Amino acid sequence: MLIYVENIRGRDPAYLIEPAAVRAAIRGLPMDVDIVDAFSDAPDIGALEKADFFVGAKLDTARLNRHGGRLKLIHCTSAGVEGYLPLDWLPDRAVLTNSSGIHAEKAGEFGLLALLMLNDHVPQHMTSQRSHAWKRKLARPIRGKTVLIYGVGALGGAIAEKAKLLGLNIWGVRRSGAPHPHVECMFHPDLLAQALPSVDFLLVTCPLTAATRGAIGARELMMLPPHAGVVNMARAAVVDYDALAELLREGRLAGAVLDVFDPEPLPATAPWWDVPNLMVIPHVSADDPVGYIDRSLAIFGRNLANLAAGRPLDNVVDASIGY
Amino acid sequence: MLIYVENIRGRDPAYLIEPAAVRAAIRGLPMDVDIVDAFSDAPDIGALEKADFFVGAKLDTARLNRHGGRLKLIHCTSAGVEGYLPLDWLPDRAVLTNSSGIHAEKAGEFGLLALLMLNDHVPQHMTSQRSHAWKRKLARPIRGKTVLIYGVGALGGAIAEKAKLLGLNIWGVRRSGAPHPHVECMFHPDLLAQALPSVDFLLVTCPLTAATRGAIGARELMMLPPHAGVVNMARAAVVDYDALAELLREGRLAGAVLDVFDPEPLPATAPWWDVPNLMVIPHVSADDPVGYIDRSLAIFGRNLANLAAGRPLDNVVDASIGY
Repeated sequence: MLIYVENIRGRDPAYLIEPAAVRAAIRGLPMDVDIVDAFSDAPDIGALEKADFFVGAKLDTARLNRHGGRLKLIHCTSAGVEGYLPLDWLPDRAVLTNSSGIHAEKAGEFGLLALLMLNDHVPQHMTSQRSHAWKRKLARPIRGKTVLIYGVGALGGAIAEKAKLLGLNIWGVRRSGAPHPHVECMFHPDLLAQALPSVDFLLVTCPLTAATRGAIGARELMMLPPHAGVVNMARAAVVDYDALAELLREGRLAGAVLDVFDPEPLPATAPWWDVPNLMVIPHVSADDPVGYIDRSLAIFGRNLANLAAGRPLDNVVDASIGY
Repeated sequence: MLIYVENIRGRDPAYLIEPAAVRAAIRGLPMDVDIVDAFSDAPDIGALEKADFFVGAKLDTARLNRHGGRLKLIHCTSAGVEGYLPLDWLPDRAVLTNSSGIHAEKAGEFGLLALLMLNDHVPQHMTSQRSHAWKRKLARPIRGKTVLIYGVGALGGAIAEKAKLLGLNIWGVRRSGAPHPHVECMFHPDLLAQALPSVDFLLVTCPLTAATRGAIGARELMMLPPHAGVVNMARAAVVDYDALAELLREGRLAGAVLDVFDPEPLPATAPWWDVPNLMVIPHVSADDPVGYIDRSLAIFGRNLANLAAGRPLDNVVDASIGY
């Protein structure tokens, strides 16, 4: 068996997929494995054409389509795969798996941090600091306030768990409408408008799909009460940032903590840097620099065992729902 | 019995001491009570000279000394009384009580928020945002990291309790060295130097006294590891801000969240506004705008009952230790 590992040159070492780590993740599996690793800007096409499995942080879908005819499994070390949809490029024998779920602990903490920052008016204090203005604004404790988590998957669920520790009321929105142990009240996306006027915080953690693109638009944001704050840990395209910025400038929303932008890195000329009460976080909310790749490779290793045993795979991307 | 209530004109209504609230706090006490209320800039000296009890947010110590000869109890609705020491102005029959402890829930949350901000590099991200710079910097979860709480009283204890929810190791410094249920390792102030090199966060919550003034100086700050962050929720004079700013500018400390300054409001010309990785919070970390005065008056009411019953009083300021 041949595993082809593809890295991106110059990225933070936290994201480097080391062959030794791959080997550790598949230790004990009943198969002989060779590993070839290459950078995406210098691919080993010959090896790729012979490979059974592919592991990479970013997928060159055209190259995989052209040279991945033997691949049975393509594993992506990130959670969001919206850039690879539809899956019309996927080689016939292959399935695509993602790393959804490996961000849960870090993301849970960051979600709680973002809610506390909004509750304590930190975006306002940050804006005041820029102009050397001392503007006191008191805040009640967060206990008893309500957050609506838009997209209760691994991330949203982890945030719900942490937020519950501080006594928040947790509401959620889920495609399936299915209950979740840490969510008191679950809404179907069609009923979003019923929830929005009653929440103190809207926290967006859904995958980007055809259904969620633009789901938090001007109409939805305007249904929030003016003291409410918005957190986006999903993808920029889920939330209408133009509308959000206008509402922040007009004081019709209190604050925003945004961890995702389009494009990234956010250019210095982007308007969001200077919007009052808007915090720009450089897409770090969910990534733990230690063990990130190991946790992703654990999914890959488990799936190789699943394949060997004829069991269904974990974390398979479903093109029909988009994640 | 006469209670003299003194308010400060123009302050946030959250701090207004309403006579009705005083009456509610002493309801059920076996005494006839009259209440006179006045603003500090238009005192009713005649009433003050006849008053048995005084309640106020800010004490005019000279006036109380001169006209408070009948006072048995002077109750201050703030927790910090460092501005009134030594107590040489205190009328002979009077004791001074403060409102230590009423800030615990709000302060506990803010302390946790400050630790999470430091852990997630929010001061750095805020500084980068000012210059429109996208600088990713990943953070490990806060679980397993160590905070040293300098001053484990009502505030520090409440923060310890919240921080424990997220799995931090809690170390403390206490004048008495006495253990605390949420603190794993308690240091006497003399042993501070042993703790500093091993902590990730230093959180200052002590009262300002002769012993704590300047206690966190350049020497102490330099003993912290360079990745450490500092929170001050106590009083500015406890921490050497000049030294702190220099260490932040040199990258020898990672970040600071400061809620207290001298003077306040912080003037627009103060240097702290622009120090990299230093967050200016306008002294709001501990104040819940709802119920603040009611919680303070509950201490006052309890003490009137204590007086009537000949019991010792709560929250008496001890001039020998300074709080």
